[in-house]
Amino acid sequence: MTKMAIMGFGVVGSGVYDIVTKNADTITKKIGEKLEVKYILDIRDFSTHPGADLFVKDADVIARDESVTLVAEAMGGVTFAYEYTKKMLMAGKSVVTSNKELVSKKGTELFKLAEKMGVSYMFEASVGGGIPIIRPLVNCLAANKVESIYGIMNGTTNYILTKMFKENQSFKDALSDAQRLGYAEKDPTADVEGFDTMRKISILTALSAGCELDDDKIPHEGITKITAEDVLCAEKMNASVKLIGYSRIRDGKVTARVCPMIIPSDCPLYSVEDVFNAILVTGDMVGDVMMYGRGAGKEATASAIVGDLMDVVRHKGKFDKNFSWEEEKEGMFFEPSEEENVFFVRCDKTKDEAKAVFGDVKFVEGASCAFITEKMTEKAFDEKADTLGGVLSKIRVYM
Amino acid sequence: MTKMAIMGFGVVGSGVYDIVTKNADTITKKIGEKLEVKYILDIRDFSTHPGADLFVKDADVIARDESVTLVAEAMGGVTFAYEYTKKMLMAGKSVVTSNKELVSKKGTELFKLAEKMGVSYMFEASVGGGIPIIRPLVNCLAANKVESIYGIMNGTTNYILTKMFKENQSFKDALSDAQRLGYAEKDPTADVEGFDTMRKISILTALSAGCELDDDKIPHEGITKITAEDVLCAEKMNASVKLIGYSRIRDGKVTARVCPMIIPSDCPLYSVEDVFNAILVTGDMVGDVMMYGRGAGKEATASAIVGDLMDVVRHKGKFDKNFSWEEEKEGMFFEPSEEENVFFVRCDKTKDEAKAVFGDVKFVEGASCAFITEKMTEKAFDEKADTLGGVLSKIRVYM
Repeated sequence: MTKMAIMGFGVVGSGVYDIVTKNADTITKKIGEKLEVKYILDIRDFSTHPGADLFVKDADVIARDESVTLVAEAMGGVTFAYEYTKKMLMAGKSVVTSNKELVSKKGTELFKLAEKMGVSYMFEASVGGGIPIIRPLVNCLAANKVESIYGIMNGTTNYILTKMFKENQSFKDALSDAQRLGYAEKDPTADVEGFDTMRKISILTALSAGCELDDDKIPHEGITKITAEDVLCAEKMNASVKLIGYSRIRDGKVTARVCPMIIPSDCPLYSVEDVFNAILVTGDMVGDVMMYGRGAGKEATASAIVGDLMDVVRHKGKFDKNFSWEEEKEGMFFEPSEEENVFFVRCDKTKDEAKAVFGDVKFVEGASCAFITEKMTEKAFDEKADTLGGVLSKIRVYM
Repeated sequence: MTKMAIMGFGVVGSGVYDIVTKNADTITKKIGEKLEVKYILDIRDFSTHPGADLFVKDADVIARDESVTLVAEAMGGVTFAYEYTKKMLMAGKSVVTSNKELVSKKGTELFKLAEKMGVSYMFEASVGGGIPIIRPLVNCLAANKVESIYGIMNGTTNYILTKMFKENQSFKDALSDAQRLGYAEKDPTADVEGFDTMRKISILTALSAGCELDDDKIPHEGITKITAEDVLCAEKMNASVKLIGYSRIRDGKVTARVCPMIIPSDCPLYSVEDVFNAILVTGDMVGDVMMYGRGAGKEATASAIVGDLMDVVRHKGKFDKNFSWEEEKEGMFFEPSEEENVFFVRCDKTKDEAKAVFGDVKFVEGASCAFITEKMTEKAFDEKADTLGGVLSKIRVYM
């Protein structure tokens, strides 16, 4: 039998408890032993919960108990989650997490500590909720050099954009809708401004590149500036707009960015709607591979955590270097302003004025002055946009 | 260093050699040691190949060489591949394969042998080419009870169906096209009659159910009977037709089938086109998850084989029971005639005659007499169809 603890009994933590209880037979059959929750760490009062006896308020109770070898961290945030994760790893316990912020900010240090202690620190649930992505990337695509990753990794913004497209809602109305349905937080900043997506692409990029990518190195913009006119132009081009976290690895150099992106209908990301997520990975051997599903939610995220827990039991908590990365290496990252993209532009100038500055562009039919540029660096684009006297919309195009 | 052999130097086998050679640095970095091809088994003449020295014609040379611990089988077929795989396992070598026919027909026996010898027998490449599916199913979704699997797992038929939809080609013309482009074999039976898909769904079902599913227990039909009228009706319903291999697991009983299926546009399988494959898995916790990519091709399939090889090296060839299944259990399988489905029907009767037999059906607007039935057993459907005096088309509907 393996005894475990759950840290944080919110949506995800209680989901972990539910699955370990409900699917106990399946789990025992697959890992060859029982998985038992011995403690749940949460400072709130759960005295009426059926598992009330399991609750503790002091992390040291868990850390000191040598019979507990495995901990699921579902606390969220960095402050306490960081402190307690370190405490558990230092006590020789493997930790499994869904905490994207902690993994993206402190992963490097926590992997080192786990390796030193000879235990695991696993994070499948931190990106894409229940969608298999970390393990496919590390194991199934192991023979590949990953060339790029493009992900729709935030259900809230994808729901909002879907509403803007399907029902011609404004951003504001779609956001209200999402808030009413519980898909968006009261303060939606982390989602709509792209912070959540930034943490996830930071994790996938670090994993693929083998070294940390400081969040400051990832330029990010959200979807708040997308207008009804942009939506109309995208539709005219048979395309949709998605909030994309992407990274590209070329000649050993890495670039990553979070931004809204025009997705043409022949890209498999085009038809990913509502709260669904999808991550499109291009490997030098396998070509395009996409993983799709619900990127959030209690049971989906908990399913990924329990999958990791089971894997840790099967491998007796052994640290696997492939599920980690090292410190940032100098010269590893591409200067964002030198990165090349194709841009969609809306402006209040004439087509002739636009052509005079941007050259041979493709105009969107039926729109006053909207066009797609040729591939150019971010820097070159910004200079041209300045020359033109500014643009109304600038959205990168998936290519 | 790990020394390996490749059995069969056709499309996939030579792909394995190419990747192991080309991405040697990536591989070494990830598994912590060099992976070296010591032998290639093929009876044909490769004396002008750069690796000509590696070729042998006698499998015993490989079996006897104790320095070789790992073998990639890319021979295809059952006769020799079966014999040689057994030989290698009995010699204490782990084997990795892309051979869907061998895994579906002889998997149970080969897993037993591998377990007895304490080595691995891995088969990620046998379903969906380079698409991660076996490992996500076994590891990432481990905490789930798998409820159903629906897969587009044959690129040839999906290419043909896409042509029939997008360019209104007949089945015959689309097949000729596919043959001209090398997407279909000269004798296309295995693809268009559903045998290839049957082997793949047999593997996924056995893996999910934990026990073998005799191919004879999987009713299968291909796409040769799909007509232009069916395509037209599907379009009117905003749906497509795909060749689907599916299995459903309910109350511990399993049912599996291969057949063309009407896929409505809100199902993520709807937009999987051309030679692309996708597998939609529903778990009781995670909900719907889909894996998408190229289901065949030299490099994609070889990429999955090399991924498995690397995993075997990392786990020192240790047998993992989760990547296997046991003999068929009595009472495990649902009688196909008792299985429930919703059906699309085209017939040469009047709407009133159809209603008199099938009750409250939904007619396809603008078609003479085509409709969707309520959910009913296969047996009930066949009886009603008989009463009606036969139908022109009977296609199951994804639900």
